[in-house]
Formats: sequence, C-alpha cells, structure tokens
Amino acid sequence: MEKDSYILGVDFGTLSVRSTIVRVSDGFEKGTAAVEYKHGVMDTHLTASEGEPLPPDFALQVPADYLKAFHKSVHGAIENSGVLIRHIIGIGIDFTSSTVLATDEKGTPLSDYPQFKNRPHAYAKLWKHHGGNSQAKRLLEVAKKRNESWLPRYGGLLSSELALPKVLETFEEDREIYDKAAYFVDATDWIVWLLTGKLVYASGDSGFKRHFQDGQYPSSEYLEAVAPGFGNMFIDKMSGPVQPLGSKAGELTDKMAEWLGLNPGISVAVGNIDAHVTAAAIKAVEPGIMTAIIGTSAVYLVNAEDFKEVPGMLGIVYEGINEGLWCFEAGQSAFGDLFAWFISNCVPEEYEVEAKKEGINIHDYLTRKASSQEIGEHGLIALDWHNGNRSILSDAHLSGLILGQSLITRAEDIYRALLESCAFGARKIIETIKNNGVEIKEIVAAGGLLKNKFLMQMLSDVTRIPLSISDASLVGALGSAIYGAVAAGCYKNLQEASNAMGNKVPNVYKPHENRSIKYDKLYQEYLILHDYFGTGQNNVMHRLKAIREEAIKEKNYKKN
Amino acid sequence: MEKDSYILGVDFGTLSVRSTIVRVSDGFEKGTAAVEYKHGVMDTHLTASEGEPLPPDFALQVPADYLKAFHKSVHGAIENSGVLIRHIIGIGIDFTSSTVLATDEKGTPLSDYPQFKNRPHAYAKLWKHHGGNSQAKRLLEVAKKRNESWLPRYGGLLSSELALPKVLETFEEDREIYDKAAYFVDATDWIVWLLTGKLVYASGDSGFKRHFQDGQYPSSEYLEAVAPGFGNMFIDKMSGPVQPLGSKAGELTDKMAEWLGLNPGISVAVGNIDAHVTAAAIKAVEPGIMTAIIGTSAVYLVNAEDFKEVPGMLGIVYEGINEGLWCFEAGQSAFGDLFAWFISNCVPEEYEVEAKKEGINIHDYLTRKASSQEIGEHGLIALDWHNGNRSILSDAHLSGLILGQSLITRAEDIYRALLESCAFGARKIIETIKNNGVEIKEIVAAGGLLKNKFLMQMLSDVTRIPLSISDASLVGALGSAIYGAVAAGCYKNLQEASNAMGNKVPNVYKPHENRSIKYDKLYQEYLILHDYFGTGQNNVMHRLKAIREEAIKEKNYKKN
Repeated sequence: MEKDSYILGVDFGTLSVRSTIVRVSDGFEKGTAAVEYKHGVMDTHLTASEGEPLPPDFALQVPADYLKAFHKSVHGAIENSGVLIRHIIGIGIDFTSSTVLATDEKGTPLSDYPQFKNRPHAYAKLWKHHGGNSQAKRLLEVAKKRNESWLPRYGGLLSSELALPKVLETFEEDREIYDKAAYFVDATDWIVWLLTGKLVYASGDSGFKRHFQDGQYPSSEYLEAVAPGFGNMFIDKMSGPVQPLGSKAGELTDKMAEWLGLNPGISVAVGNIDAHVTAAAIKAVEPGIMTAIIGTSAVYLVNAEDFKEVPGMLGIVYEGINEGLWCFEAGQSAFGDLFAWFISNCVPEEYEVEAKKEGINIHDYLTRKASSQEIGEHGLIALDWHNGNRSILSDAHLSGLILGQSLITRAEDIYRALLESCAFGARKIIETIKNNGVEIKEIVAAGGLLKNKFLMQMLSDVTRIPLSISDASLVGALGSAIYGAVAAGCYKNLQEASNAMGNKVPNVYKPHENRSIKYDKLYQEYLILHDYFGTGQNNVMHRLKAIREEAIKEKNYKKN
Repeated sequence: MEKDSYILGVDFGTLSVRSTIVRVSDGFEKGTAAVEYKHGVMDTHLTASEGEPLPPDFALQVPADYLKAFHKSVHGAIENSGVLIRHIIGIGIDFTSSTVLATDEKGTPLSDYPQFKNRPHAYAKLWKHHGGNSQAKRLLEVAKKRNESWLPRYGGLLSSELALPKVLETFEEDREIYDKAAYFVDATDWIVWLLTGKLVYASGDSGFKRHFQDGQYPSSEYLEAVAPGFGNMFIDKMSGPVQPLGSKAGELTDKMAEWLGLNPGISVAVGNIDAHVTAAAIKAVEPGIMTAIIGTSAVYLVNAEDFKEVPGMLGIVYEGINEGLWCFEAGQSAFGDLFAWFISNCVPEEYEVEAKKEGINIHDYLTRKASSQEIGEHGLIALDWHNGNRSILSDAHLSGLILGQSLITRAEDIYRALLESCAFGARKIIETIKNNGVEIKEIVAAGGLLKNKFLMQMLSDVTRIPLSISDASLVGALGSAIYGAVAAGCYKNLQEASNAMGNKVPNVYKPHENRSIKYDKLYQEYLILHDYFGTGQNNVMHRLKAIREEAIKEKNYKKN
C-alpha cells in the first residue's frame, strides 16, 4: 500500500453520523465531521409524515435522514482532512443495532414510498424501539418451551431490541408492509448494500442481533409455532450470505462513488455494530484482551479460539468481532446510570453547595471524599442491580440493595459502596467467563467513565487485571476505519490492523495486591448476597416488583 | 380525700427538673415549673471543680445541682398553681436511670466532700455515662459463662448504662471513693431518701437497672468472679429494702418540708424511672395495654399477671411498673433517629427547597409525598437496624438495609420504606411478646413522633392493634404525681389512680383490614430478611463492622 493511504470510517449513532478519514499506516485521524439526523428519534409522533401520534415504546427513524447525514458528513470529513481522493482506498461502517428497516427488492426503504409515508412500520425501527415487547416475550416463551439450542448463547433471554421481535411486530401489526417488504435488513447491512449494490450480512450483527448461530437462523418450525404464517421469514425476507467482519462486502459503485465524492471500485467492508467496533479501535481484538465500554451501562467483549458455554452472556457469536474467533459479550444494565441516579436522588444540599464552592462537579467531589477512605471503612455492601442484572444472572426483575448503614453513614460512603458494587459486578462477570475457559489477561477500557480514575484503579484492584485505556476521540469511526483497512487488503488481518491503527495506552492502572486482598473480603460478601438474592434462594426482589405492579394498577384504577 | 387535694409530681430529666402540682381527683395540672441543672452534663471536663478533662464516654452530673433545681422548681410550681400548701398531700418523683451516686452513711454525695471535689467518680454518673464499657463487657462475659439465671431477663445483654458497671468502674478506677462510699444509690432512691430520711429502693428501678430479680441481687460468687474483692458490693453498698412502686417510702421530714415549703409528714412515694412513669400518665398500667414511647428511639412497656420468658427484652421485672404485676420492657434502638439520619444524609436539595416554599418542615413534606402512595408501590423493604437491634435480637452489631431500589426510586420512597421498617420492627416485638403468652390488645403512644399521624396510622395498620394517644404536656411529672397519689392513699391502687388522673385519647387510630392485608405481604418479606441477617444465617453485618473497625485502626495507624 502507499504510505499515505486512507480509509473512510463511518459511525452511525443514535442521533448523528460521524465520518473520519484515517491514515492506514498508524490510524491517525486526518479529518472528521459529524451530522445529525433531521428527524432524530421519532418516539411520540411520526414527524416525518403528518405527525400522527405513535404508540408507547416506539422509537423510529427515517432512512432518508441517514443518507442525507451520511452524504454531508463524508463530504465534510474529506474536506476537513485535506486528503486527496485517490488516497482514500476503502470504507468501513458501523451502525446502531439492531436497527431494522423494510425495503423493496432494490433496497429502497418502504418509508420512501408515498403510499406508506404515514405507516410507522415502514420506517426504521431504532435499536431502542420496544414496540415489539409482547412479541419478544412470546418468542422467548416458545423458545424456552422448545428448548431452542441458540437460547443459551443469549443468556436465556430475548430482548425486544433484537431484530426478530421487530419484524414479528410488523408481521402482526401491519401485514401489508410485511408482505410488501422484500427484505428486513439491519441498517448496517443496508448501508453496505447501497454502497456496493450487493446485499451481504455481517457475521457480528447477524450473530448478536439476528439469532444466526452455527451457520443458521432459528428454524421455520420455531417461528411458525410463535406465529402461524411467520415460519419462513428468514427464508423469504432475510436471504443472502453472511460474511465475516473485516471481509470485503464489495466495491463502491459508480453511482455511490459520485454521490460521496470518492473513487469508484474502492473496497467496502461488511458492516458492523457501533459498540463492537470499539474493540478494534482500542487494540482489544486478540484472545485474552477484554474490551470494557463503561458508560451509562457497561458492555464487555472478549474473543477466544474455542466455543465455550458461558452462562449469562448477551451473546456468544462466532466471528462476532474477529474472523475465526468466538466473541463473548456480557453487560451490566446500569453503571454510570447508577451514580447519576444516586446524585439526583440521594445527595444532600450541602454536598452540592460544597462542590460548587470548589468549582468541581458533584461526582468528582464525592469521589474525592470516598477515595480518602480505607477499603471497608464505610461498612457497606451494595448490589448494583438497580436496573436489573444482565450478566450473569439475566434477570431484569432484580433490584438494588444497600446494606450496613448506621446513623453515621454519609453520602460518600454509599457513593463508594455503589462504585464498588459495579466493580464487583464486573469481577463476577469476568470470573464467570474465565471459569468457563475463556482467558482474560488484560482489560482495555473505553467510555464516559474513563474520566473517573479512582473507579478505574478500583476496577483493576478488584479484578486483579491490568487496565489499559484509549484516548481516541471518535472510537466508533476509527474502529470502522480499521475494519475498512482490513477489507481493503492493507493488513493481513484485523489484529494486525488494530495493532497498527488502534489507540491504546497500556497498563495505565495496575492492581495493587494490598488493596486487592482487602477488596476480596468485601467481594466475598457481595458474592453471598449475589447468590442469595440472585439465584432464587430469596426471591424477594421479584415479589416486591410484583407487589409494586399490583399497587400501581390499583392506583390507576382509583384514578379512573 | 378532700375534693381539691393535690400531689406534687417531680420529673428529673437529663438537663432539667420539671415539677407539677396535680389535682388528685382528675389529674389536672394546676401549676408547673422547670429548672435546668447548673452544670448540665459534664462530658468533656469536670466543670464543677477546676475543669479537669474527663476520659472519653464520661457523662457526669453534680448532685448539688439536682437539689438546687429541685428546690427552685417546686417553689415555682407551687406559686404558679395558686394551690394552698395544706392541700398538697403527697409527693411522687422520677429520675433518669440508672443515674448512680456514691454517698456517705447519711446520704451526702461524696462530691460534696471538699477532698473529693476533683474526683470524677465522686459525682453522679448519668444514665448515659459509658465509662464502664469495659466493665459491662466483662460482667456480661462472666454472666454468660456462669449462665446466670437473671441474664435472659435482660435479653442476654448487660449495658454500661446499668448501675452495676458504673459501680464496678469506681471500684476499679478510684478505690478510695469506692471504699469511702457507704452507699451507691440510684438518684431516684437518693431523692426519696433525702425527703424521708429512710433509704428504700424502688422495685422498678431495682429490677430494670440494678439486676434485682426474684427477691435478690446477683450473687457474691458472680461478682467475685468478675473482680476479686467486689463480691460483697450489694451487701456492703446497697443494703436496704426494695419496695413496690406506688407504695409509700416514708413521710416528708420537718427539715425537707421547710426547705420545699410543704407541710411535714405528707406521703412520699418510692421513686421511679422517668420513662416508666409514662405508663401511669397515659392510662396504660393494666395488663394488655402497651405503652409505646416513640421518640428518637422507642420503648415499649406492658404488664402481665404472670411471668413469661420472652426473648430479647430490655427487662422483665416484677412490680416494674405496677404492684403485683410483671413488667416487660422492649425497645428499638433507633426510631426517630432513623428519619433524622435520612433527612441529614440522603435527601436532595430540591426537597428542602420545595418544603421551604410550602412553609412546612421536611419531615412533613416527605411524609405527605410518601403517604400518597399505595402500599408496596415503592417496591422497597428496609431493615430498621441502623443503630443495631435491641429487641428482640439483642444485637448492637446489626446494621441497616434497603432493598429493591431501581433507577426511578426517589427519596420519598426510601423515607416511606424506613417508616415501614420501624413499624415492622414494632410488630415483630409485639408478636414476640404475644406469642410468649403476654396479652397486648391496645397500644397507647406517647413521645415526639405522635405528631406524625401517617406513621401512627401505619403502626395501627401494621400491628392490627388500636392506637390511643396522650396529649398530656408533662407526661413524666404527671406520672409521678399519680404514683404519689397512690402512695398517699388517695386511690386503692395504681390502676384506679391512672384511670382517674391519667390522660388518654382512646382509639385515635384503628387498623384498616384492607391496608393491614397489604402490609402483611411486606411484613412477610421483612421477617425473612430479619431472620436471615439477624439470626446468624448470614452474619455479613457483623463481618462488615469488623472490617470497618480494622480499616479505621489502619487509618489511625497511618495518621500517627
């Protein structure tokens, strides 16, 4: 390759698309541009049409918005980079997932058809569209009853954020749209299709979001058992090859090249999931290195040579991130959200006043106070289940707990106990993965909570694993560019590309054995409570949720 | 008796003494006066002498202060009442307990001796003097080892607030004072002794605070085993008759009559404990009626014909309140303190702002928000053990718990869960007493938390027992006057006197079965957690306290 070759990386997020022009040799980002989607998320009204109100739990987007923003951001990034067009030799993209749209034979979204303009199911269903909640429940029930072999690969759960419930919802709620659709595609595959003129499905997205396992989708018998007439959905509406990530999906068509201002014929990589490209961006694609994306919630990704049955994963997917490897994804339903909740609901005025006086934010103020304590000094243990437990218990009906309060317990004590509970939750996930035969020798962290250094050190101390971090600015777009570079043949494989182009500051936090030993004691208590409340010994959390639901029903009944 | 006979009731509190002139026929308070003790509580320095610093955990008072305040408040009450001296026909007093002082043969406190002026142990040790902590621990250890028969009557515990550790502390810390003391008397008996010239011990105080059970004190063998040379303490330093409450201790001496401005020869009742006279003041002395004094902590008192072994009581004392009856005392270590802690440490600014805007206090504001919820709507369960659990677990090393939080849990939810936890704690105590054969058919409540009507209704709903309240202003002094009236022969017995003179508004709160049923569900969850964390199934609270102690030691070590 030429010394100054570049790849276009494009990251389609929830509200905007970010494009970046990345140097192949070292991953340097020469120019970037971000553009928002015109209609954002339509969650109350169909604003792209005549503003019809939407049912609850809806979250739709306008496929045409994606393209407009895509066009503008690519042109912007190229312009900002000052890179010559001929030096841009490939494209990699990622998208939120599962964001699903119905298209005709040629890939035109049905929402582009004037006659379907006011039909919600003709639009893209964003990853957080939960209109298919009841469908997801039924899909899960039948899968459990039939003991479907793929179910354990998703921790025994089936979220309405996946593709299947979204398509079934259309089947049941707007049969005309369903019938008219030639394809239901995830947006990441759809963009690649438009760029290359060929529909191929990405292995990562297919495995994590479309139940593609061991070379096949869930069976027709299963789908038919869920909803008569739905049995052939995968055959009728999702046909096409599934390709590994980092492989080339095709070449940029003349028409799209002209539209984007790029050279025709350059390589286009198969699409990716926005969170998952992080692993490539932060040099965490080889076996044994765990990607930890720690923001409002936490996502953990790690690759391994061999398949292992690990309980409570969000997904166990062959070639989920890297060719030839199994990817294991786990998650904590609340992480940063937990501290945000605490700040909003449990911190007295004097702390806000004091933080303001010092000109620091309340999180930093509480963290500083908490960090001056000895380990265990607060006398508390918390369970980090305020938003349920995703991994490894796969139980959305669990809830939070704080134990050990005395009359001298203060806000910083509880804040620290919550930080620790998240770290203990992470350790439990890591240990479960390791105990099932998947190696984890390093963690590379990305996400909003990197800024809390005390927490990062705690994570390393609690898990006894060195913690690296990344300071890349556009992690998603960089990750996609890396996949683009592999597909364009610039590197032998993803690992080489990631090593050369990724951004990682190694071993910023190392475990301190003295502290690890002290945290061990608290972790042992966490484990006892984890098992007691999480594995059915005392189902009080479930019962309280049921009581709560009854109470709310009664309240609403009284109101009406 | 004459129609307009009066009794002087005197209530010695922690910081002041309240005197009241009460009409015998109906308990009407004709005139009152309160006077503070000159030196208050000496807890850091011996301010009555030359200001020598005191060791930690000390809380001393000056006996001479009691007498000065006593003199002034009695004269003030008489003057305020406008009652003729000849119409005042008796005296009843109560005192904080166990407040212990060392006296000579005649009852002169050793602190009055100039040579002992700067000797802390010559002063009165106030009920909350904890200087004898280590003595209390050893007394308990030996009692357990020897399986002392009286130990179960105190829930298997021995607090440093009782008389025995305080006297042993003097024995070990200032032998000269110990040797010089002819008597160690509880202040309530001391005042009566001064008034009558005769030392008699009150049955209530003797049983609750001086380990007098089944007609005897703990054995010399036991005391000798704790501290060689201490074996004969009760014989040498506490000799004298123990008399039932409501009996006449003696008659007012000429000298004291002149000093107080009363007629000589009028009846003086045996002394009482300040909290315990409440029962008489609020008409709760007959079997089956429970006195609930609900303030920063909660005290429960109930009488029964027969002795029953009830676990976890603060005391089970014959004639502890009423002649011929067994009194059962139980307690919750934190009640109002729990809500005060929550307000100080866990309530965000916006609530304070909103409460101020409405011109109501934050407790009322939170209570109103909490009370608009359906039962169980918050989805929470709490354990009310932030200050340990006194009854029925007798375990100071337990701690608090809140379970069930989600990311939408708000301050009023937790506040309500804490209110409920205290009500559940009360129910557990009541059920334990009832299940062991002691009847409870009515609760009469007194104390600072009467003002929270929502909580009072909750107590009735949760326990399924009607709740009466008292609106007497000086409950303690009124209660003492009632005992004084019995001793003066105005009534046949305490129950008659209490019925005539006490102050009770019956059945202000009645249980609502609909609500009771809903609370039952939450209470069942409380019980499971109560037993799991409180009875050794998971000793995590103990272990966390131990870890905390270690951490603090290490912190202090690092500091020095």
